[in-house]
Amino acid sequence: MKIAIPKERRAHESRVAASPETVKKMIGLGAEVAVEKGAGTGSNFTDDAYKTAGATVGTDVTADADVVLKVQRPIVSGKDAELTSYKSGAVVMAICDPYRAGDDVSAMAKSGATVFAMDLVPRITRAQSMDVLSSQSNLAGYKAVLDASAEYASAFPMMMTAAGTVAPAKVLVMGAGVAGLQAIATAKRLGAVVSATDVRPAAKEQVESLGGTFVAVEDEEFKQAETAGGYAKEMSDDYKKKQAELIAETIKKQDIVITTALIPGRPAPMLVSADMVKSMKPGSVIVDLAVENGGNCELAQAGKVVTKHGVKIVGHYNVPSRVAADASALYARNLFNLLQLLVDGETKALAIDWEDEIVKGTCITRDGKIVHPGLAPKEDTP
Amino acid sequence: MKIAIPKERRAHESRVAASPETVKKMIGLGAEVAVEKGAGTGSNFTDDAYKTAGATVGTDVTADADVVLKVQRPIVSGKDAELTSYKSGAVVMAICDPYRAGDDVSAMAKSGATVFAMDLVPRITRAQSMDVLSSQSNLAGYKAVLDASAEYASAFPMMMTAAGTVAPAKVLVMGAGVAGLQAIATAKRLGAVVSATDVRPAAKEQVESLGGTFVAVEDEEFKQAETAGGYAKEMSDDYKKKQAELIAETIKKQDIVITTALIPGRPAPMLVSADMVKSMKPGSVIVDLAVENGGNCELAQAGKVVTKHGVKIVGHYNVPSRVAADASALYARNLFNLLQLLVDGETKALAIDWEDEIVKGTCITRDGKIVHPGLAPKEDTP
Repeated sequence: MKIAIPKERRAHESRVAASPETVKKMIGLGAEVAVEKGAGTGSNFTDDAYKTAGATVGTDVTADADVVLKVQRPIVSGKDAELTSYKSGAVVMAICDPYRAGDDVSAMAKSGATVFAMDLVPRITRAQSMDVLSSQSNLAGYKAVLDASAEYASAFPMMMTAAGTVAPAKVLVMGAGVAGLQAIATAKRLGAVVSATDVRPAAKEQVESLGGTFVAVEDEEFKQAETAGGYAKEMSDDYKKKQAELIAETIKKQDIVITTALIPGRPAPMLVSADMVKSMKPGSVIVDLAVENGGNCELAQAGKVVTKHGVKIVGHYNVPSRVAADASALYARNLFNLLQLLVDGETKALAIDWEDEIVKGTCITRDGKIVHPGLAPKEDTP
Repeated sequence: MKIAIPKERRAHESRVAASPETVKKMIGLGAEVAVEKGAGTGSNFTDDAYKTAGATVGTDVTADADVVLKVQRPIVSGKDAELTSYKSGAVVMAICDPYRAGDDVSAMAKSGATVFAMDLVPRITRAQSMDVLSSQSNLAGYKAVLDASAEYASAFPMMMTAAGTVAPAKVLVMGAGVAGLQAIATAKRLGAVVSATDVRPAAKEQVESLGGTFVAVEDEEFKQAETAGGYAKEMSDDYKKKQAELIAETIKKQDIVITTALIPGRPAPMLVSADMVKSMKPGSVIVDLAVENGGNCELAQAGKVVTKHGVKIVGHYNVPSRVAADASALYARNLFNLLQLLVDGETKALAIDWEDEIVKGTCITRDGKIVHPGLAPKEDTP
């Protein structure tokens, strides 16, 4: 079994799909591993480190590979095309963003590649160690706070000095998923006063366990929803209105707002309107982690830091890649954990159990066809 | 008494010498305060905030001012000259960096200005609230850690995730003065494993009180010096050699090195050689807070982030100005506290006690002459 790790070719991508640690493990699985020259540079993995781990390092590593490990799905055409250089039938593992990938999914199917979309790993216990959304969102939440601190002209912690006291920063985190919870934890570490919101009343407990204050209209309806379980229950229009007013009032008083709300396969919800931005103090900072999915903040622009109404709005591309060394190390482990499931320990060859829940949940193309139930091929759509 | 707060004109300077808070206090002292339009923009103080505090906001604010409050010493000549627009005999209060100011000190004397160098405030208890070196170094130490985090491709804290553990960053802080101690505290907050060095063995206790490890060859000589008091005692050549070897070994293992060693009136000591940089892991980060004074790291360049031997070396200009809002707020208070000492509470006019220890320690020019004992005018130098 030949495994290739090419250098990522998309813009704003510093990650790599294998670390020297996982290379060693793949060799332990019986594989031959070829890493493209310089593939790890953005993640501080040197070619020598890969060689020491047992890989060969060279160019054109994918041509004869049985398995190609990628961070982002391969570019399907054009001068930077990657897919065209793969062996037909090769197994490709990558973050595919399939719901926004347009024709790329069909192109991957047509190429004959067996593509596993790492971002579709089912959220079951057995697959936790393969969950790239968690591993990458965690780091994005951490980095979002540091990106805020970079733009913020004051300090986060309270400082008591001979020249008087500096007040701590007030940070609001919107969306208390993996990224939001790590943002809360990081802002707390830095000494900020942290509050958070989430559409799931059940998130209150998690926010409070990290020392944050949960911002919600805590009426009877909320209290019933709070105990109803982890997922969002549709609240009444009356409740939504009261909650929106509370959030608008809360945002006014913040120094930093970090938004992390994503809905899989749909545009991100708009949480911070232009009017809300206008209500904030000059020098406040908003970091929009959903900016590449349409944005949680009306005024955020992907790939830019813009100043609107005196407020800095940060919309960096690909935030996990901004902590590339750790993001790659964790992603590589996620990938290895899934790969291990696809390999027979005895024969040391690929032996995919197509009925396995994780395989079914992540495999999107195979034998020239789109095979994932959630991804009806375009030609079948009425 | 008319007080003017002009906008700072030097490059890389976002601070301002008064905040709305101190404007209010100066008006309480009986002063009229004029702030230049936009002077507070870089520190998030709006013109309206100054107006609300009681100041007038306009242009050419210094022409009739009795007191001019500045962050950096006025530019003495050229198209951006500031000094030439001041009334003769005006009191000017600014960070003057007099030992590196060259002919500027003579020029300030010749202009007739009575200049108080805020960076010469004596380190006595009564003057603590005026100590700009402390207030600004504290914020520089904080920001140095965040500037390191911005360039570092991994996270600072240990993270235990479903995909395995991320090790905490190893941070070495060199120089445990005000900036160094705040850098230690900030790196600890972020979850790093922190160690520190200082030429004063007595710094060990302070470093350890913040949870850092003090890096020193702790032999008999060290133990004697440790109890000998706060200031540096000259150690033996043998000790220095052993200590240098220990530091070289320590630097190799670090992810982040933050250097903060300054010697007043002299070039910064070189602590991190090119060979030491070479010994570090790729992706490591060095932040040199002394870069504008010659640098603690041989390869640092002022105003730049350079990559040498795979190590990122950060040499930002004017680090306190990178946290301008808090830096200005604290500096403004330092300034007000000294100003208050110069004003008679009854007559509400300047009434300077030239025999006061703080006045003598900070006043560098008066009545056309350089008057500070530490600053012999150039023409008197043999």
